[in-house]
Amino acid sequence: MPAVILVVDDVPANVKLLEAKLTNEYYDVITAKDGFEAIEQAKKHKPDLILLDVMMPGMDGFETCRKMKEIYEISHIPVVMVTALSEPADRVRGLDAGADDFLTKPINDIALFARVKSLVRIKVLLDELRLRDQTGMQMGVVEEGQNTFTSDVSGSKILIIDDDVVQLKKISEKLSASYTVESISRPETSQNVAVNGGFDLIVISTQLSDTDGLRLAAHFKSHEEIRNVPVLILVDEDDQRAMLKGLELGINDYVILPIDTNEMSARVKTQIRRKKYQDQLKSSYQQTINRAITDSLTGLYNKGYLNTHLDNMVRHALNNNKPLSLMIMDMDHFKSVNDTYGHDVGDEVLKQLSEIILKSVRSADLAARFGGEEFVILMPETDFNQAQDVAERIRRTVESTDMKVSHAVGTIKKTISIGVAYLNEMGDSGAAILKRADEALYKAKHGGRNKVIAAENQ
Amino acid sequence: MPAVILVVDDVPANVKLLEAKLTNEYYDVITAKDGFEAIEQAKKHKPDLILLDVMMPGMDGFETCRKMKEIYEISHIPVVMVTALSEPADRVRGLDAGADDFLTKPINDIALFARVKSLVRIKVLLDELRLRDQTGMQMGVVEEGQNTFTSDVSGSKILIIDDDVVQLKKISEKLSASYTVESISRPETSQNVAVNGGFDLIVISTQLSDTDGLRLAAHFKSHEEIRNVPVLILVDEDDQRAMLKGLELGINDYVILPIDTNEMSARVKTQIRRKKYQDQLKSSYQQTINRAITDSLTGLYNKGYLNTHLDNMVRHALNNNKPLSLMIMDMDHFKSVNDTYGHDVGDEVLKQLSEIILKSVRSADLAARFGGEEFVILMPETDFNQAQDVAERIRRTVESTDMKVSHAVGTIKKTISIGVAYLNEMGDSGAAILKRADEALYKAKHGGRNKVIAAENQ
Repeated sequence: MPAVILVVDDVPANVKLLEAKLTNEYYDVITAKDGFEAIEQAKKHKPDLILLDVMMPGMDGFETCRKMKEIYEISHIPVVMVTALSEPADRVRGLDAGADDFLTKPINDIALFARVKSLVRIKVLLDELRLRDQTGMQMGVVEEGQNTFTSDVSGSKILIIDDDVVQLKKISEKLSASYTVESISRPETSQNVAVNGGFDLIVISTQLSDTDGLRLAAHFKSHEEIRNVPVLILVDEDDQRAMLKGLELGINDYVILPIDTNEMSARVKTQIRRKKYQDQLKSSYQQTINRAITDSLTGLYNKGYLNTHLDNMVRHALNNNKPLSLMIMDMDHFKSVNDTYGHDVGDEVLKQLSEIILKSVRSADLAARFGGEEFVILMPETDFNQAQDVAERIRRTVESTDMKVSHAVGTIKKTISIGVAYLNEMGDSGAAILKRADEALYKAKHGGRNKVIAAENQ
Repeated sequence: MPAVILVVDDVPANVKLLEAKLTNEYYDVITAKDGFEAIEQAKKHKPDLILLDVMMPGMDGFETCRKMKEIYEISHIPVVMVTALSEPADRVRGLDAGADDFLTKPINDIALFARVKSLVRIKVLLDELRLRDQTGMQMGVVEEGQNTFTSDVSGSKILIIDDDVVQLKKISEKLSASYTVESISRPETSQNVAVNGGFDLIVISTQLSDTDGLRLAAHFKSHEEIRNVPVLILVDEDDQRAMLKGLELGINDYVILPIDTNEMSARVKTQIRRKKYQDQLKSSYQQTINRAITDSLTGLYNKGYLNTHLDNMVRHALNNNKPLSLMIMDMDHFKSVNDTYGHDVGDEVLKQLSEIILKSVRSADLAARFGGEEFVILMPETDFNQAQDVAERIRRTVESTDMKVSHAVGTIKKTISIGVAYLNEMGDSGAAILKRADEALYKAKHGGRNKVIAAENQ
């Protein structure tokens, strides 16, 4: 997958070498000679990946990486540290600064391209999600800074699959300090657990005695439900094939055996942070939809949602020869509440009416705030008599309820008028049934209020 | 990228062979022995790719493919036809049936895996978009069947880059029959056009004399703005390297030179259909957001949106030492319109009031329906006197407007009362300024209606 890569190094020869290698593989390359320029270039060009030298004068790679991760627009761009240092402690330092991985100088081409491909692929998926988030921000439904890469990872769930029980215990104990961990020592039993366990990360050993760990990872990654759950594999130091094949198969990271638990922890944290960020971006979409169909004051469905569904439900009832009823209700003299006590008290009263409505309907019913003090309940598979009973029950409940308000009077008593209409089996439409209910409501209002009136079908 | 692949062939040996090859590369394989079983398996397992034999007894591969494309849940799964037929006419037949590509028996492994990888990658991106669409459907904000794979492709825009002007003319003429085509014979000038032209497909020759066509394709694909625009390359029959490298780089399809224009047309259509489907899924999200922030009757912003922005705008005004005003207006005796003429007429009147409001505000102002017959206008960088002028102008316009209604009376005259409040520079909040405006509105109402009252800051 083509990509723009930022190469950062203070030694021109190193930049030239990497640039040549990457350009040869059809990547677009931009360069920077120090950390300051790197941040400027990253902000300006939004590359898909950053290859960052560690040892630089002025601001070193760790510091540069840390700074990049604090800038929203570039915080999600994967960073690979290029370093001559090869101690686990150095790697932990880089991971803590927010780096995704390391390449050791002199750079091995195969390792370089495997890493680049894998990280670019993840980045492109993340871009799609971020694009939506930005649309949401522009339209003002997602707050800036609501979704950030540096989210809290506590309480995340990790699945570890390893038949080396000593090693399994060691990993599990280390990770249990920060996460909820489930351990499986018999890989053949892991399928169901992995798919249905709601994990934020799966750790798989590639040193299993009877199972090919890579195949297990590939199998999980081919399930649409858990495709986006990061997988981290444990590989033997000499098993370069497993590392490269793993990256090709879409595993997200690897830890070399024997395990340095600090490095493992740091890598686990990096993966889980990215997963959490993706989850945030996705749930942000759900929230947007929720807001689109819900009345913000009462939590009932809004008029738009009712309108979308009314015709469908009428059609469905006609096609299946099922009854259907609808009621529209209006609070009597509601205006006087607003005028006497103010809008806040008016809102409190409407909320309490909504609660009465919600307690009176079944889950198959659709209760919506139709506007102001008007509410509609659409009741599938409910006939004329049942609907009148429900309406009468709601009317009586409202009449007898002392509605609590934050005003000196303490409570208010209100009544409602209701119009009920039911499906005309000879042919009907959402608009027609709503109109009949509305006419019945009008009669209830002009017949003295606090009444249920049912519309007769012609 | 791991994937589930469905292999369909009536000859068990062929199934076995493909299954072995794919399993060896860590793919999950499911199989079917005829078209009927293939459709069942596809519906049940939702594979990521289908390898479909053409010559089968009962229902052949063309017919099976056509049927699959008519079933919503599986219509987006890429299909590769496996065939001994190698005439362009056969390929066109398959493409017309909805297939994405062909593999000729005996199957070349390199071609097989390049194709599989490329199609799976596209499929996984599409899955993300479909997942959202399905969430939308479940929540009832996207209608089932609203977004379909078989959408209209007319009016789509295609960019062709080829320095062989004879060939360029031939392609351009063929495609111009169905699409809007832009031709570029000097590749070095294509960058700006490609990025900003809003194309649905880019066709690039790999036989350019001074430019590497693949590099150009990779360069386009590395631009986030046009990453998802499909690229089709023209390759010489013998240039397998270009085909494979192209697929690796994320190009979406290739056409062999010399061009069979019918085959090219069929491939172009396949690519554009997928692009259009992606666009639909994306704009569906925009619509959802729009619905979340808009009042469905008037098209003004809704209360939720106003609330989200009010505090931000107040804070911004305070921090930048700028004035800010807010007015809240309420139609006088609106209830009587609903009671006398019905809700439909009431809605007509509210819509006309909204139009007057929209004509009276600047683009920087935020006009929202606050509920029922109440409207709020938030006016940044507007001082006390300016706000009163705007309010007075709106009041007078409403007073003098004959509102057209679909009722025997023909037109209705209404008036509005308005409360205006402005920012307290000593410190203020959205809730406080809204409260002051509301109190002023209350005074306007009790002072005889059809009035503008401004709240004084203490």
